[in-house]
Parts: sequence; C-alpha cells; structure tokens
Amino acid sequence: MKDQTPTVTKGPLPASRRVWRKGNRFPEIHVPMREVVLHPTSGEPPVTIYDSSGPYTDPKADIDLDRGLPRLREAWVRARGDIESYTGRHVIPADNGFAEGARLVPEFPVRHIPRRATKDRAVTQMAYARAGIITPEMEFVAIRENLGRDGAKEKLLRDGESFGADIPDFITPEFVRDEVANGRAIIPANINHPESEPMAIGRNFLVKINANIGNSAVTSSMAEEVEKMVWAARWGADTVMDLSTGRNIHNIRDWIIRNSPVPIGTVPLYQALEKVNGIAEDLTWDVFRDTLIEQAEQGVDYFTIHAGVRLHMIPMTVDRVTGIVSRGGSIMAKWCLHHHRENFLYEHFGEICDIARAYDVSFSLGDGLRPGSIADANDQAQFAELETLGELTQIAWAKDCQVMIEGPGHVPMHKIKANMDKQLEVCGEAPFYTLGPLTTDIAPGYDHITSGIGAAMIGWFGTAMLCYVTPKEHLGLPNRDDVKVGVITYKIAAHAADLAKGHPAAQIRDDALSRARFEFRWEDQFNLSLDPETARSMHDETLPKEAHKVAHFCSMCGPKFCSMRISHDIRAEAQKEGMERMAEKFRKGGDLYVPLEDVK
Amino acid sequence: MKDQTPTVTKGPLPASRRVWRKGNRFPEIHVPMREVVLHPTSGEPPVTIYDSSGPYTDPKADIDLDRGLPRLREAWVRARGDIESYTGRHVIPADNGFAEGARLVPEFPVRHIPRRATKDRAVTQMAYARAGIITPEMEFVAIRENLGRDGAKEKLLRDGESFGADIPDFITPEFVRDEVANGRAIIPANINHPESEPMAIGRNFLVKINANIGNSAVTSSMAEEVEKMVWAARWGADTVMDLSTGRNIHNIRDWIIRNSPVPIGTVPLYQALEKVNGIAEDLTWDVFRDTLIEQAEQGVDYFTIHAGVRLHMIPMTVDRVTGIVSRGGSIMAKWCLHHHRENFLYEHFGEICDIARAYDVSFSLGDGLRPGSIADANDQAQFAELETLGELTQIAWAKDCQVMIEGPGHVPMHKIKANMDKQLEVCGEAPFYTLGPLTTDIAPGYDHITSGIGAAMIGWFGTAMLCYVTPKEHLGLPNRDDVKVGVITYKIAAHAADLAKGHPAAQIRDDALSRARFEFRWEDQFNLSLDPETARSMHDETLPKEAHKVAHFCSMCGPKFCSMRISHDIRAEAQKEGMERMAEKFRKGGDLYVPLEDVK
Repeated sequence: MKDQTPTVTKGPLPASRRVWRKGNRFPEIHVPMREVVLHPTSGEPPVTIYDSSGPYTDPKADIDLDRGLPRLREAWVRARGDIESYTGRHVIPADNGFAEGARLVPEFPVRHIPRRATKDRAVTQMAYARAGIITPEMEFVAIRENLGRDGAKEKLLRDGESFGADIPDFITPEFVRDEVANGRAIIPANINHPESEPMAIGRNFLVKINANIGNSAVTSSMAEEVEKMVWAARWGADTVMDLSTGRNIHNIRDWIIRNSPVPIGTVPLYQALEKVNGIAEDLTWDVFRDTLIEQAEQGVDYFTIHAGVRLHMIPMTVDRVTGIVSRGGSIMAKWCLHHHRENFLYEHFGEICDIARAYDVSFSLGDGLRPGSIADANDQAQFAELETLGELTQIAWAKDCQVMIEGPGHVPMHKIKANMDKQLEVCGEAPFYTLGPLTTDIAPGYDHITSGIGAAMIGWFGTAMLCYVTPKEHLGLPNRDDVKVGVITYKIAAHAADLAKGHPAAQIRDDALSRARFEFRWEDQFNLSLDPETARSMHDETLPKEAHKVAHFCSMCGPKFCSMRISHDIRAEAQKEGMERMAEKFRKGGDLYVPLEDVK
Repeated sequence: MKDQTPTVTKGPLPASRRVWRKGNRFPEIHVPMREVVLHPTSGEPPVTIYDSSGPYTDPKADIDLDRGLPRLREAWVRARGDIESYTGRHVIPADNGFAEGARLVPEFPVRHIPRRATKDRAVTQMAYARAGIITPEMEFVAIRENLGRDGAKEKLLRDGESFGADIPDFITPEFVRDEVANGRAIIPANINHPESEPMAIGRNFLVKINANIGNSAVTSSMAEEVEKMVWAARWGADTVMDLSTGRNIHNIRDWIIRNSPVPIGTVPLYQALEKVNGIAEDLTWDVFRDTLIEQAEQGVDYFTIHAGVRLHMIPMTVDRVTGIVSRGGSIMAKWCLHHHRENFLYEHFGEICDIARAYDVSFSLGDGLRPGSIADANDQAQFAELETLGELTQIAWAKDCQVMIEGPGHVPMHKIKANMDKQLEVCGEAPFYTLGPLTTDIAPGYDHITSGIGAAMIGWFGTAMLCYVTPKEHLGLPNRDDVKVGVITYKIAAHAADLAKGHPAAQIRDDALSRARFEFRWEDQFNLSLDPETARSMHDETLPKEAHKVAHFCSMCGPKFCSMRISHDIRAEAQKEGMERMAEKFRKGGDLYVPLEDVK
C-alpha cells in the first residue's frame, strides 16, 4: 500500500508542544492541549491553546496512515457493555461509484469489525447524560474546554454580552452532562470512530468551526483529501465534513475517518445519489437507508439529513432570485416534485433516528432551503423549513439522538440576529451550525471575508459551530491553501465571538499577544498568532534580518515613529515622576489645565 | 523628468466603461460612474457602480503624470470670487528631510501658484452650505451618490436598520447642502487640489473607505507610492492618506496630489517631526504652523490633528496593556510630558482652524489615545479624548471648518456599538472615521479580516468612512498586493454596511450578481464582482477551459450535484404544472401534506 499511502503535514507549530491533562474521574483519559512557550524575558508561563490537531503535531507520535490513529475511545465504548460486534454490510461496487482497476482508490488496509448497540438500545451521549451517567467523553470535553484555566493566575474576565447563553467560569463534567442531556450541546462521537478526540458543540462552550473537504466528479484525489483533513485540523478545524460526490466515496471516507482526530460529518444523500447514477428521481428509502448503515459502520460522526425540505415548501422557492442552493435541498425538492410525494427523509425520520441511536451518529438537520443570495434571506421558505427542523428535533430527542441545526447562507447583517433568535425559539436551543452567513454577494473570490463577518456576528449571537467558507466558494474546489485561509478566517470569527460573549478564558491569548507586541517580543507575537508562519514571513518582507526580530521598534514605522517605543519612554518618565501623584494633580485641575474657553 | 516618472496602472476594468452624467444646476459638471455591461442573454441594462478610479480607467484619457490630472474644479473655485493667488511659501531643504543629490526625489515638474481665501473669509463647503449656497461640488456629490437610481426600473428596497441615520430615496443637491451645513457630512476639497473629484463623507451617504499609503524611513519610494495611490483608487478607495514619514515627504506628496482623483489626507505632525530631526520635545507651534501652510498650499484635503491628547489624560494610559499606539498620539504625549505643558495643538486649535478655513482643508480629529488591544478598548483614556474631540468639533464648526472624528482601533464586538453611540452623542453627529476596529488581537497577518468584521459592524452602526487595515498591519509596510487586499476587504465591509443600513441602491449590484450566478452567466458574475481578475482566475484553476465559462453547472459541484441547475429544472417543471395552483393546493393541505403525527 505504501506507494499509494498519502503523506500529511506533521510536526509541531513554532514554539509549541502538545501536552496532556489527566482525567480525575477517569484517570485513563489524557486530554491534549497546545502550550506556546514564551521568551524567558516575558517572565510569563506558557499560553495554553485548544488543540484540534491530533497526534500529527506530536513529534513523538508514531503516525502510520496505513494503520490509522490509535483507537483511544475503544475501551471506553466497550466498557459500557451495551454494544455488539457484527459482520456488517459488505462493500459493493456501487459504494465506490463503480470505480474499478486503476481508478479504484485502494481499500483502507485495516478493516475493523463494526459495532452497534445491542437490541434497541441508544448508545448516544445524550442517552447516557439523561440517565445521569458521566462518560469519559464528557470529562474529556470538560477538561478540554477549561484549557487549564482553573490554574490560571489571571483574574477571569467576564466582560461580554452573551444574549442568554450561560457559560460558567469553569466547565465541570456535570455541566457537560447537563448540556448534553437537555440538548443544548452535542458530542459527535460515533462508536465506530474511536480514533476521534471528544469535543462539544454548544452555545455554552467555545465556538467551534467546521472545514469542508471532499472530491467531486470534476477533480481531486484520496491523498489530497486526507492531507486536507489533517491540514484543516492542524490550523484549528474542530470537525471536518467530507462532501465527496464522485467515485470512490466509500474508500476515500475510510482513509479519512481512520486517520481523523476530529469528528467527521457527511451528507449521506450525496453517496445515495451516486448509487442511483445521479438521477434524483430514482432515489429510494432503501438505497438511502443502506447508505446510512454503510456510513454509520465506517464511523461517520454526524449526518446532514435534508428532512426539512417538504413538498409544500417547494413553491415558496420559485420566485427566489437564486432558487434552492443547497445541493441536498435541490435533490430532495426534485424528488418530491417528480413523485408528487412528501420528502421520504421526512416520512422515515423516525427510522433514521433508530439507525443513528444504534451508533451514536449525531444529526445536522440540513437547511435545504437556505437563501443563496441577499435577496432571498429570511424568506418564507427558509423559515418554514426551520420550523420543520424544530419539529424533527423533538422527534430525534425523543429517541435520545443528538441534534444540531444547519443555518444560512446569505444574510445581510441586519437580518442575522433574527435567524439566531428564531432558531433558538423553534429548535429548543439545539446547537445552531451555520454556513457563514455571507453578508453581501458582490465579492466572489473573497467570500471567506464576506462570510467571516456574518460568522463572527452569528457566533456572538449564539451559533455553536461555524462552517467555513473558503475564497474559492462559488468559483471552484478549495485547494490546500484555500483550506488554510478558510480555517484561519473562521478561527478569527469564532474567537471574536468568544470574546464578545465574555467567555472566561478567551482573552488570555489576546492579552499575551498584546503584551508581546508592546514589549517587542516579535517571536512571541508570531508564535501566539493563529498563523505563525504567515506572520513571520510578512515581517521578513520588510525587515528580513534576524536582528530585526529583537528590534525595539515596529517594522511599519521605523524607530522614530514607533508609538510603542515612545509609550515606553512615557511610562519610564511617568514612573520617575510618580505618575500617580501627577495624575491626581491633573485631575484636580491646575495651571496646566487650560479650560476650553481660553483656547477659542 | 521622464526617466523618473512613475508608471501607474491604467485601463478599464473588465466589461466596464467610464460614463458621465451632466449636472442640471451646473451643466458644466460631468460626474463619472462605471457601467458594467452584461451579457446580451441577460436582457438587463448595464449596472452602474460608484467609481473612485479617476481618469486612469478611461482609455480615452490623456494621462501625463508629469503634468498631473486635469484641474476640473479650478473654474468652480475661481468663480466663487473669494480667493486670491499668492507667492506662497518657499520649499526649503527641511521639507524633504534634507534629502539631496541622488537621494532627493525630483520636484513635481509643474508648480501651480497657491490660492487662499481673501481676507479672513472661509472658503469651505460648510461656509457656503450655511450661507444657503449649493456649490458645483454639492451637485457633483448628489449625482454621484445617486448612481442614476432615479432612472432605475427596480423598485427601491428600503429594508434595513439604520440606527437613526436618515438616508433619503434620492440624494438632491439641497440634501447635500443641508448635511454639510449641519456638520453631518463633509466634502474634503482643498481649493489647491482642484484635480480631485468631489465626494462626501457622512452617515447619510454611501459608506466610504480610506487607504493609507506612504513611505517610511525604512523603505519605499516615490514611484511606488504614486502607483499605490492610483491602484488603491482603482479598486475603490474613496480617499487616500499619505502617511509618509521619511525623507522627501514634500516632493512625494506633490507627485501624489497632482495625480490624485481622490481627496488626500495627511498627518502634518509627521512632517513637522522630521523637520526637528525626529525629536518630539523640539516640536513647536511655529514649525507645525509652517507645515500646515506648506501642505495646505500643496492641496492636502484633510489633516489629522491630534489636539485631543491632553496632558491630564496621559496618566490614564500608563496601566494599559499597550500604552499609546497612535504615532501622533504618542508624539504629542511625549511632548506634553517633557514640557509639562498642555498639548500645543489643543491650545492653538483656533489658529489651526483659521488656516484650514482659508483653503478648505477638512479636519480629521485624531484619536491619539485609541486602544491598541482588546484589553484597552473603551477605557477612560479613549473616551476622555473622544469628549475633547467633541469640544474641538464645536470650535471648528464655529469657524465653518469641516470636521470628521477618528475612531479606534482594537475593540471586541460587544463594545463597538458603544463607541458609535458615544461618538454621535458627544461629537454632534460629525462623521465618524474609524480604523477597523480589530475584533481580536490573535491574528497578525490577517488583520484585514479581524478588522473587516469590526468595520462592517461599525459602518452599519453609523461610521461614515472606514480606514482600511492591510494584512501587513503590525508586521510591515503594505506592498501593492496588500493595498489591493485591504481595499477589497474594506469595500466588502462598507457595502455590507450599506446593505444593512437599507441604502436604497445598495442591493442592486448584489441582485444583478446573484441573477448572473443563478443563470450561469459566469462572465457577468466575474465582471460584477469587486475583483473580477481574482474571481476569474479562481474559476480557471478548477475549470480552465473557455467552454466552462458558459457551462450550465457550478465548478464546485460538477453537473450532477449542481443545485442551481436542479433549481432550474424544478422551476421549469413547476411552470409546466402551474406552480401557483399547485402551491395553493399545498397551502390548503391535502393528501400530499402528511401531518407530523403520522411520521413519528
């Protein structure tokens, strides 16, 4: 297999090391974080950063892509005593779009026997939470979200506006359990993807981001997609959706899941459509159901299900400027219209839940009628579907299934909050998972930015996970560089949202970087940034010499005009004079205070 | 001079032509706009776009950089009969930082005799507006802002939330006059820069953007800066600030102003500091005053004046994480502290106004104490200075001077609106002109994005002009590519703000582009975008063939998964069946409507 094995990006980020914190309740769990070591002159401890990158950034990790990542959750899952191994479904040529010979991507070299719940049990994190059980996954999440802030010396800043979110100072396993139990958070963790490191998506946790990858009929290969997944996680993607639509879907997905430290989401409809040769009208519940089981056995952590696109809503889209822009939505609309029947995903949603609960596949209820342009934002079709997603949420919860709700799309700024508020209202506070939204349509090529604006805002208002948009949106398939730009842009949006919500730990990294900036610790400034390589290379362009990395002036202004250097002079002078006394004098007014009237 | 003459980017943007609309009141004025011609299959008229690019995008224009642009406002200014020509100040070696020989940038080849107001007259647009006079500049602005929407067939969309802004359906010259008279808008138009095309900055007009250029002691040359100015205007910069700080400041500025179709702003303090060899303590009112006159004679359209940094405020900055980050602010703070005296710009502000009103130089009252980090946002120092800027605004207005107010900086999302509201309150609705604000500190290298988020929001809340931030912010001097990315990012922010405010013409371009997208008119989609070249090249990466530019599917998804193609099928099918009747049936409910209970 070695000649076909993909190569991925490995090694730590600059000045960073992967560290672990042990569980208390479950001492066998080791929660990874990244520590950025600062220059000794700072006198500051390392800064702890949430780390989604998996073992790839650990130089001591033994990475073998042919074998897959260590199956860290396997023992936890087995210990619950409610699952069984079974033969599983056989892979058939249709699963790979009938690719054969040299065009067939090789099977993943190791086949793990699939597992599922015994009898009709629900093996979902929600089921355990509701039963009062704290799972290792829940403690893992609690430790991960805290980022060691229980040990931080700094006073917790709780300055923000959270619009009803309720983020505690410290996340406890009990809090995680409660949030999962009441549906406000999910932990996407298929029992057949034990390689993943548990993470939570919910309004009372750090805002997460998703990166989309996937080949298409037009372009891209397995090796590229595996590297895109590792690459996206390296820069901060919390989950990855594999949106492949061409041939080899099954085998590519296996390579991705076995090597993924983050939850993997899919849109099973895409593969089902490939199985019926791309003819939407030929889709059947049987084909779809078979695809769900196929993917659940592989370990897909969440499914996008377009069950909210109902027959009676389709006429509402006819006068839109851009019709239906969700691929899944348009496929189901076409099916409904052709057969003049209700969406079979809606009709069979209960059965879909029965499958999901047997593997703990979470739902991402698809917004098949999301607006594709500013003109169509917040229209009747969009909100009618959202209400249906609220109904489906109740069905899923009744079956102990974990649910999040997909959101738009293209929405001008003044209509964003209405989206969030309506979602909270009609979907019972199930986590919102939005694409952007794009705040204008006039900048193809820069839609990471048009949407980053909307993403930051809706994240602030309460969206739990932001689906990235790359610069290639509307124009082409993202390459590795586009994936990185998309992820960094969305990390910015998510972090800006955390700050604005008043997340207790969010500002620690900003403050550490700002202090480094003010103290001319250039290396620390680069290392604390979301993209140290880019920051350093931009500095090199203006001041390339190594000596400039310790320069006590800003490369933009030169030494004479460096405000920060002057600020240091001021501070020194102030300390000399006793600034406090001076300030007091000024506040009381004196000769130095010239009243405005005298100036006129 | 020819061997030293800079070369600049010329020629129209794709499918675009520069067109003019004649004045009614002043038939001699010709207001430029850009028309984007659409593909004949669209059946749509050209889309009219606000055009800041000047004659450079007109293939018929005779551009001679050694001569400068045509002096279109010269006759208008002269016709008012309130100015005089005079010898003007002599250029001395200090003006160019004592550069000599080969290091001296050549003087601009043409010297225009400077003009100023006769006696103590105010020749400002505000003075005329208050006297009830509509100037050609005002009608120019009115026509320019309307973008021909008086002739648009589409119904005006007034959907938005403007937070108290009051944008009329159509901009009349009278409206412009009223806004300028009451200080809510400015038209920066130095009588010695008659080459500029009038534009307005105010909350009831389109949101504008500024691009900063300028050499520094460390790097950059005259030719580069002139090209950056033309380049920035090409992509949409409404004004340009020349922030040069090194040698040759005077001569570089002359080349820039004589060739600039947009208003030019400066920070005179930078040049004054060069004249005293960079020693802040040696600054004097005389040196500063001389610099103001030098720059006013050259034609600078607006001055940043850091008169709000007062002695008693300096102690308020000492405990900040990043001290004082404004160059001008730090220079004045150092001066104040050294001399233990009040800021001489504050003390002499009345005299500064007397100079400004004689040339119609507008003020941009500098926010010398703006926060340089999230930690310092909205602090006592920042707001104390803002209140002083409000006092200074009243002084300037009493002298008929045009004023805008500079704003931050680094501000987390939840504190942005407070900035805007406080500015409106304490500065009498004078236009706000903000840098960003950056919504997080953790992404050096991407600060166009961290700040683009804040810029879009504060633009929506009421900021009249957004000062761009490039990817190089905090790291180095922007090159030509950085300037373009900065301008495009800020055009996005400004446009997103116009949409959210409910500007009556803003959505026309979005809708035209969205229709092009839905109808697979790829060329129209590229041509209507803010950056047609980038959009096209990204499409080429995935689908390089010319034939793909007429492909009826999206390059991202391939033909089978193209939601838009499927939407067209649905629409066709719907029309066949009589969608209206069908919709009616569904709304009433029938066999096809499956109530939720049956699905569970």
